[in-house]
Amino acid sequence: MLLDEIREVGDIRKIPPEQYAQLAQEIRDFLIEKVSVTGGHLGPNLGVVELTMALHLELNLPEDKLIWDVGHQSYTHKILTGRKAGFEHLRQFGGMSGFPKRKESDCDCFDTGHSSTSISAAIGMAAARDMRGTDETIVAVIGDGSLTGGMAYEALNNAGKMDTNLIIVLNDNNMSISENVGGIPKYLNSIRTSVPYLDLKKGVYDRLVGSKTGDGIISTIRRAKNSVKSLIMPGMLFEEMGIVYLGPVDGHNIEAVRRALQEAKHFERAVLVHVITQKGKGYAPAERHPARFHGTSPFEVETGVPKTTRNKANWTDIFSTVMFKMGERDPKLVAVTAAMSEGTGLKRFRNKFPDWLFDVGIAEQHAVTFAAGLAAGGYKPVVAIYSSFLQRAYDQVLHDVCIQQLPVIFAIDRAGLVGADGETHQGIFDLSYLGSIPGLVICAPKNKWELSDMLKFAMKLGRPIAIRYPRGEAYDGLEDFRSPIEEGRAEWIYREDDIVLLALGSMVPIAEQVREILKERGMHVSLINARFAKPIDEEIIREACRYHSLLVTMEDNVEDGGFGERVLDFMSREGIGTEYLNISIPNVFVPHGSVDLLRKELRMDAASVAERIIAKVELEL
Amino acid sequence: MLLDEIREVGDIRKIPPEQYAQLAQEIRDFLIEKVSVTGGHLGPNLGVVELTMALHLELNLPEDKLIWDVGHQSYTHKILTGRKAGFEHLRQFGGMSGFPKRKESDCDCFDTGHSSTSISAAIGMAAARDMRGTDETIVAVIGDGSLTGGMAYEALNNAGKMDTNLIIVLNDNNMSISENVGGIPKYLNSIRTSVPYLDLKKGVYDRLVGSKTGDGIISTIRRAKNSVKSLIMPGMLFEEMGIVYLGPVDGHNIEAVRRALQEAKHFERAVLVHVITQKGKGYAPAERHPARFHGTSPFEVETGVPKTTRNKANWTDIFSTVMFKMGERDPKLVAVTAAMSEGTGLKRFRNKFPDWLFDVGIAEQHAVTFAAGLAAGGYKPVVAIYSSFLQRAYDQVLHDVCIQQLPVIFAIDRAGLVGADGETHQGIFDLSYLGSIPGLVICAPKNKWELSDMLKFAMKLGRPIAIRYPRGEAYDGLEDFRSPIEEGRAEWIYREDDIVLLALGSMVPIAEQVREILKERGMHVSLINARFAKPIDEEIIREACRYHSLLVTMEDNVEDGGFGERVLDFMSREGIGTEYLNISIPNVFVPHGSVDLLRKELRMDAASVAERIIAKVELEL
Repeated sequence: MLLDEIREVGDIRKIPPEQYAQLAQEIRDFLIEKVSVTGGHLGPNLGVVELTMALHLELNLPEDKLIWDVGHQSYTHKILTGRKAGFEHLRQFGGMSGFPKRKESDCDCFDTGHSSTSISAAIGMAAARDMRGTDETIVAVIGDGSLTGGMAYEALNNAGKMDTNLIIVLNDNNMSISENVGGIPKYLNSIRTSVPYLDLKKGVYDRLVGSKTGDGIISTIRRAKNSVKSLIMPGMLFEEMGIVYLGPVDGHNIEAVRRALQEAKHFERAVLVHVITQKGKGYAPAERHPARFHGTSPFEVETGVPKTTRNKANWTDIFSTVMFKMGERDPKLVAVTAAMSEGTGLKRFRNKFPDWLFDVGIAEQHAVTFAAGLAAGGYKPVVAIYSSFLQRAYDQVLHDVCIQQLPVIFAIDRAGLVGADGETHQGIFDLSYLGSIPGLVICAPKNKWELSDMLKFAMKLGRPIAIRYPRGEAYDGLEDFRSPIEEGRAEWIYREDDIVLLALGSMVPIAEQVREILKERGMHVSLINARFAKPIDEEIIREACRYHSLLVTMEDNVEDGGFGERVLDFMSREGIGTEYLNISIPNVFVPHGSVDLLRKELRMDAASVAERIIAKVELEL
Repeated sequence: MLLDEIREVGDIRKIPPEQYAQLAQEIRDFLIEKVSVTGGHLGPNLGVVELTMALHLELNLPEDKLIWDVGHQSYTHKILTGRKAGFEHLRQFGGMSGFPKRKESDCDCFDTGHSSTSISAAIGMAAARDMRGTDETIVAVIGDGSLTGGMAYEALNNAGKMDTNLIIVLNDNNMSISENVGGIPKYLNSIRTSVPYLDLKKGVYDRLVGSKTGDGIISTIRRAKNSVKSLIMPGMLFEEMGIVYLGPVDGHNIEAVRRALQEAKHFERAVLVHVITQKGKGYAPAERHPARFHGTSPFEVETGVPKTTRNKANWTDIFSTVMFKMGERDPKLVAVTAAMSEGTGLKRFRNKFPDWLFDVGIAEQHAVTFAAGLAAGGYKPVVAIYSSFLQRAYDQVLHDVCIQQLPVIFAIDRAGLVGADGETHQGIFDLSYLGSIPGLVICAPKNKWELSDMLKFAMKLGRPIAIRYPRGEAYDGLEDFRSPIEEGRAEWIYREDDIVLLALGSMVPIAEQVREILKERGMHVSLINARFAKPIDEEIIREACRYHSLLVTMEDNVEDGGFGERVLDFMSREGIGTEYLNISIPNVFVPHGSVDLLRKELRMDAASVAERIIAKVELEL
């Protein structure tokens, strides 16, 4: 096995070029085998095996800097930097992350997770390099999907004025997580099918390589060519922005990529190297179903069939069904997604009502303000989005939707702990960042029927509203509790005395378990389904505090600025002296791991919460 | 006076074309006179007088939709829609806003304030129009400065795939608030100096105008031209994105702009009309000093000299001085601004250390992650930014700076109430949205010396930190209180008993006044300068609660998720039963008006706070 010889960074240089193909194959086999067991991002990683090898052959890590946009395509990079063994516990609690982590290796120079950040970070590192006067090479690898994010463009605009070297590798697989959207991807496609310009230019650059005066000559040639270059040269768009364009290059041809990188190093400018790759390359099921194998659960290697079959519907499935049904009834309903039709469950809606589904690409800011425009135009847009990605559009929610009180509905998936993707993807901040925005109603369903009821409630509200629900199976208990949804009104589930649990959304089923544990200890425990994080149900809190000695709020959001603090603040304002306990996520970044395990670590699982309540009660005695 | 004939929208059409020049002059005179009294955005408005007239001549408002990016250039639009009288109380409490407001007029179809939102909103309205099947014209007017914001690019990328009409007027004055930055502005400049293509194309389009089949012909012509168009046609960058480019057009030539708009209407595509204007046009002082007259305080019309002379230094001035001094001592210090060198006080630093100042253009997201890259590269970046604009980069602060604990310093100007700019510019959310982010230290200085001390403290901290300070004069009282800054430690100012005020930043001087009022009522009042909003000083709170019967927190941030809730949550966790009062901004959007007046309205001024404390104390008796 060639792979056995890769023990640390740089070892790839010991492999003779004629064996690169074999090494690539071994890496693919390794990735398929490992990810089939742990789950993870398979398609993106299979697509960049040769590209990563070429980068490692041309760069001197960790002195040179390699930044992976989004970062879920860094598996081969992890293998080549001595982290092969980490794949045993990939994305598991305490195990290796599925993303680059500075803490994991000095070859990971910048943590990523969200899209479109890499060029900004790279320009920062390049500026630091230039001030310091060193000469390391800095490379950002960014996908064509990430290029639709506005942040990448802000960075390109700044890259266009650079007078030192920076290499941007555009890893173009003609895909976001699902299909690409908009003018730029269409533009890239037109390049993809054109004659590579690189070979044409190669002769000239080869002669100039290594000569410092060469840069001056190159720039003279480039100026002279300006008037005709678009006739023979793709990449005009980048060139117009002041960025040198090289490509397109076959990303599965290691030598071609190496040659392009070598050339790119010789410009005292920002250079974009356009590399064409195929997502899922080398594994037939992933080539056929790129969206499904973008991120996958464990699967059978031979067939690509998932190992676990789900019995229960996910929250996303429920959302999917309700949107479909509401679409049949309300012609004003439209849906907006930022490249996540599949992930957010809008596929069925899209298939039935293609004209009412707007996929704007990876562009969360635009998604929200576009929805504000739809609402100002008389429609009822539902923006379906993951909690951690909505962070990108905080200002747009505040500034474009809420100040004008436009009736935009935010369907926030992956709220709370998400598990294996770790720090960057946990949806544990939305109650705080959204909670600070005036005039935004925020709610969370206890079970699958309530998600449906809340969406229907939202359609009638006529003002901005956010509905948050977690990743995973939708709760199907408490089916008998289905009182009508009213703004800011909570719901009694069990009425006893002594202790009252005021639980929000996905914490309701945990609160039920907590109640069982405490009952066994002879305690009397009431349970309220909070429903609304904002506005809170002041009346029910007053009433609950009258008949109980301890109020416990439960939420899967950080403590700072969350639901609990709002409740406590209200109690203080009202002069309510009832004992209070805040069950929420401590103000830390939560790493990867299974949600169950993370809950235990954070003392948010039923047993831990029961213990904390008992400790609180005993303290008071 | 022609202006007297403009009483409502559409009245401009009654003016004969030969009098347009006179009307434009009257509008300019009116704007200069009014803004010289009230203050406001003068330069941007003088630049678009003719452009706005042309738009009103070609559009049928309110049926057609006109969206002003940022919105501070909408004064002529306000005049032409019957709001001339509003200029008497422009930007004053209860008076007319300096920005478009749906509440003010049905000709204001979308509220703006922050940069780069207009194209997104316009695409949303266009989608609504197309679903509805109506045919109103939709126009977004966006400045070249706003075009460096990534959100505008996300929108352009989506505009590029449109198959119905949308008009984007690029109001190109070759300026952000100060100079422009990056590849795109450089690119626009190259167009500006080229031969207008519009006249060349005009002959062809004229013959096709009005014919529905024309669009097919146009598109055929355009396809045929594709291979040679860059030779004769500017605007390739937009064309490459799938957007029709028309221009450049002289924005002070009403007929030329009208003709371009007429042509633009005939494409079933998104069309960018490139209009060249001059900021401050027609008023010599504003033409000479575009940055100073971008937004101005009251001034003498004849000379342009400000009416009020400041005696005391502003917070921004203090920041400016400290940065300058620190720059002389620490070669690792660098500064980052998003097009606000002047506004944030970095001009002096830039002049002395031009290589250490990075102006990235209007691009807050990039600014923050670029700073993260600088920090990862071993430097100590200070991101100087207004509170409300940092909202744009919430995810970048969380995801790119704080997860990695990179030592980026956020110098947050305009925190708290800002006054005349109103809802969109109030800096009243930062303690909440930043407070939810793990590992971010947040502090606020009581007086000018403390701002200096906190910046020096931040330079040594080696972790992410935000220092927030308000608009206006820096407080120079309490000069004897200058204990060393320690992380998470507050400072005793006055120690008595009974009531203790725990005031943050700009609320300290107000707390001093509150104390004076309460003393006259015979109350004993202590005062603590909180210094840190996070982490809070748990020890001092414990101690304060031991010796006082009422703790009052004071902050100029919304209540939800603010400093007070954090303190109260701590007290609850510790089982501290001391009475508590939270003085903060109620969770509402705060309109324009003087800060003093707004404070009174919000019951945040010294007299109101004293009253609220007395009411609380009396309730407890």
